[in-house]
Amino acid sequence: MSHANRLAAVRCAMAENSINAFIVPHDDEHLGEYIPPYAERLAWISGFTGSAGAAVVLTDKAAVFVDGRYTVQVRQQCDATLFGYHHLISEPYLDWLLTELNAGDKVGFDPHLHSQSWYQNAEEKLAAHHITLVPVSNNLIDEQWHDRPVPDCHAALLLSQDYSGQHSEAKRSRIAQDLAALQVDVQLLTQAEPINWLLNIRGRDISCLPVVLSFALLHQDGSVQLFADPAKFAGLDLQAHSGNNVSLLPVNELATALQALGKQGARVQLDPTTANAWSALVLSEAGAELVYDDDPCMLPKACKNPVEVNGSRTAHLRDGAAVSRFLAWLDRRINQANPELEHEGTLADKLEGFRAANSEFVEPSFSTISALGPNAAMCHYHHLNGTPRTLGQDAIYLVDSGGQYLDGTTDITRTVAVGEPDAEMQKLFTLVMRGHIDLADARFPAGTGGQQLDALARMPLWQQGYNFDHGTGHGVGHYLSVHEGPQRISPKGSIVPLTTGMIVSNEPGYYREDGFGIRCENLQVVQPADLGGDIPVFEFETLTFVPFDRRLIDNHWLEDKHIQWLNQYHAQVWENISPQLEGDDLAWLEQATRPI
Amino acid sequence: MSHANRLAAVRCAMAENSINAFIVPHDDEHLGEYIPPYAERLAWISGFTGSAGAAVVLTDKAAVFVDGRYTVQVRQQCDATLFGYHHLISEPYLDWLLTELNAGDKVGFDPHLHSQSWYQNAEEKLAAHHITLVPVSNNLIDEQWHDRPVPDCHAALLLSQDYSGQHSEAKRSRIAQDLAALQVDVQLLTQAEPINWLLNIRGRDISCLPVVLSFALLHQDGSVQLFADPAKFAGLDLQAHSGNNVSLLPVNELATALQALGKQGARVQLDPTTANAWSALVLSEAGAELVYDDDPCMLPKACKNPVEVNGSRTAHLRDGAAVSRFLAWLDRRINQANPELEHEGTLADKLEGFRAANSEFVEPSFSTISALGPNAAMCHYHHLNGTPRTLGQDAIYLVDSGGQYLDGTTDITRTVAVGEPDAEMQKLFTLVMRGHIDLADARFPAGTGGQQLDALARMPLWQQGYNFDHGTGHGVGHYLSVHEGPQRISPKGSIVPLTTGMIVSNEPGYYREDGFGIRCENLQVVQPADLGGDIPVFEFETLTFVPFDRRLIDNHWLEDKHIQWLNQYHAQVWENISPQLEGDDLAWLEQATRPI
Repeated sequence: MSHANRLAAVRCAMAENSINAFIVPHDDEHLGEYIPPYAERLAWISGFTGSAGAAVVLTDKAAVFVDGRYTVQVRQQCDATLFGYHHLISEPYLDWLLTELNAGDKVGFDPHLHSQSWYQNAEEKLAAHHITLVPVSNNLIDEQWHDRPVPDCHAALLLSQDYSGQHSEAKRSRIAQDLAALQVDVQLLTQAEPINWLLNIRGRDISCLPVVLSFALLHQDGSVQLFADPAKFAGLDLQAHSGNNVSLLPVNELATALQALGKQGARVQLDPTTANAWSALVLSEAGAELVYDDDPCMLPKACKNPVEVNGSRTAHLRDGAAVSRFLAWLDRRINQANPELEHEGTLADKLEGFRAANSEFVEPSFSTISALGPNAAMCHYHHLNGTPRTLGQDAIYLVDSGGQYLDGTTDITRTVAVGEPDAEMQKLFTLVMRGHIDLADARFPAGTGGQQLDALARMPLWQQGYNFDHGTGHGVGHYLSVHEGPQRISPKGSIVPLTTGMIVSNEPGYYREDGFGIRCENLQVVQPADLGGDIPVFEFETLTFVPFDRRLIDNHWLEDKHIQWLNQYHAQVWENISPQLEGDDLAWLEQATRPI
Repeated sequence: MSHANRLAAVRCAMAENSINAFIVPHDDEHLGEYIPPYAERLAWISGFTGSAGAAVVLTDKAAVFVDGRYTVQVRQQCDATLFGYHHLISEPYLDWLLTELNAGDKVGFDPHLHSQSWYQNAEEKLAAHHITLVPVSNNLIDEQWHDRPVPDCHAALLLSQDYSGQHSEAKRSRIAQDLAALQVDVQLLTQAEPINWLLNIRGRDISCLPVVLSFALLHQDGSVQLFADPAKFAGLDLQAHSGNNVSLLPVNELATALQALGKQGARVQLDPTTANAWSALVLSEAGAELVYDDDPCMLPKACKNPVEVNGSRTAHLRDGAAVSRFLAWLDRRINQANPELEHEGTLADKLEGFRAANSEFVEPSFSTISALGPNAAMCHYHHLNGTPRTLGQDAIYLVDSGGQYLDGTTDITRTVAVGEPDAEMQKLFTLVMRGHIDLADARFPAGTGGQQLDALARMPLWQQGYNFDHGTGHGVGHYLSVHEGPQRISPKGSIVPLTTGMIVSNEPGYYREDGFGIRCENLQVVQPADLGGDIPVFEFETLTFVPFDRRLIDNHWLEDKHIQWLNQYHAQVWENISPQLEGDDLAWLEQATRPI
């Protein structure tokens, strides 16, 4: 079916529903960062396959809304005779709807695919112009999408306490106490990561994110109703693993359970920014009292326990050896015949191969960014979206990748010389490295948020009139999502204090348009430091051990303390990684980690 | 009249008004930082003379609420048989009222003395417990306060454009354009500083703050109605100075003017956090449409124009010579006979004397903090609140002071050796100094708030397990308040970006309880820096020129760049201040500014 025919079919369904517009976001009912193939409704209707965006279908026109990363891709993938395109942030689709529609018009949306916060805000905004927002209970796309993939049925994994470090019952009883104190009867959980963390389960429902897609109701007594495909748990004793007070129900019984809570007049808490509007609608229509607050799993999930931290350390040693082998191979490959036979895609595959050689490796933690020369200046470049660039023509190469291991999640970026870097590239690499070191070296008292530390990583660039246009650090899960909150290190936003066990990335960068891109990324875990001053403080323990490229460093831009840090770090890399390497790889590591 | 009799009289008035409680805040109708003597109602009823707090009178008991700085003072000043005392922040008086009162009770307050935001919040909070908040139009204190001071009638000053740098009409037309764009008919201005800035007037109504206390209505056409005591403008041609569209009216005509706006159904904008509840009540009862937003004068007032910046530079050169003379004298005095004849009070007076020798000096910009030894560990210590400590027994002395000059406002803290500082004091002084330097040296792009830079000044202390419990920097006015917003440099709060012309203090410190106190404070102005990088950035230009005490510096705790900064700063101090000194003072400056 062509996109024109798909649009026509959806417009027929819109007419039957008496709506003048229909919104198709890039989201599934869990509103997480990644979605499974059966939820790729935006791609089905428009052809656009990016990881964020939305389409809006009117009776006589349609438009796709994407952010700055996808302005080129959307033109390549969408038929301009069918879809206009707009900037998701500077021209939000609700504003666009206001210019296109008239008072009295109706806008349809699938409440499963929008958060309760979005719904409340959008409804108010449209109502001010006498336009009605209409929940459409059966998604208009799904009705027309005849070859829609069925959800995969990957087996769930019951994650041993050797990895999780804490029994599900202990996690649940702690959160249940907080619910009782707030007089909340039930917590609705709609995102996969907190549920999988809470029950110590994992799955393979989404690429790169090892979760069982599910919903859950956590009751004030600590019991849980888990709504997931029971077939995924075939042959597994979930109750023996997670607790006798965990019951497994098919997802299609969630509505009944929510209605039952409503009839009891229960006080049900949900996070309106992550829970879909459908669940809030069902609950409130049935008579439940809704309480809006942050998901109470997020903070304990972010603060890794000692077992999780230890697992992450071990995973990083393994990962560090794999990435080091790749970099050693790359250095050799450049000097062999026909380096141009290698391109960004083969390099990414080679790196994944080194990781996959580990038996504990499960899958990549995100799609590898493998970018040569000017491609690295695009922060969200992906070599599969165009013709991959080949080795041999550029001075530097940026590779941002990570792995999912049963004992932890990794995320590392290295920028390395693959040609003849010039003084400007060395200067900017060194300034980025210096910012990385200043942040890695920070100590800070309780209550300090990442927002207060972000400038440390930028100051060396700021001093020379440069900056980078992304956050400095994100939270990282434990064999879970490579991006997690609530903590982050960025100029604005979250002021959640950094505290013991939180894993964050430290990844300042620099991007010269049409020129080159630089990013230096390690993961680090927050730990208490014992200094004997007046107050306890925290510091970062670095988890990642892979050499930074000495050939890109210009000592002129460093102070003694930065050089000391680098030499000490490289000594640790040698100590931690050399036992895993042999032969040429070991020789490479020795020269890559010698003092500067 | 004893405080017991005063309480009894107020309780009689409460009975007549059928109220069960009456709130007496430390505020006047302008809700600024400083209040004139006629507004010292809290001191009249309770005896407490601190700069912040509140009393609450019930029919059978009363309580005073003060913050951490005043827990000792309140016990000294208030009769414990009449008043309980509570912590203003951790035991807010509204919470206390909820525990003391019953449903159906009424709480009286004078709406002139509380902000509209306070009123809205307090009304809602009490109403939830069925307690009513009752505006009392004639203040119950004023009725009983028979010897209440009459407001002073100091002559106003028409500030020459040689000082202000911009005509009032230019200021007003720019803001009026913004009001028109927002479809606001009138802006109500209730704080003295923005009004005095807007009309280029100054006064002497409050000690240390050179303003005419007043209210104003700024209309969309740029015209202003100024409500102030006309006697202060006797013999002055306000219209010739500020513009023909400025009319001067007695303060008691404000109510009539607000009612007239209401009858016209005008859209009147006010800042609910600074405008008193009385004005909002009068306006809304008369039919005006209230628009709540920040006071539009605050940001342009904060961004000094080049004439104001130049004036501030000149004022600081003058002030730097006065403070240097004081420090030179102090060094000599310590080595003369009977240093113990000098105490914190005589030192503060001596310093003011050096400033007052300048013909351009108007008055101190705040009450000098002159603190020896352990007294300096109390951030808000004042020598008049106890027995001043004498010279000769302590190792270090902290003096925080400033001056009001027609061309600018100064604020400087120096911590100097007056005995034998030990290695611990030197270490902590050097860490504080290092934080000061790291902040002074910062560069940052447009959009950066002080919150992002605050950690720079703390990191050297944090690294060793120390911190200080106050903000790092506040805005400073131009011959106006020494504390002004909206910008600040602190861990939390304002994220208003720092931009060209903003003057901020840089004042990290360290306080060892019962031991010593350290603070290093300069003022600095934000300026664009031309670096030739990718983006324009800002940097700080230091305004203050007085030596930091070399005897307190331990180079071990500094990097080369800090030593370079100090030596370069001291070279500038020598260059800027030496032409104003002679004899022993000049010799002192020479040794105080030589390289370390």
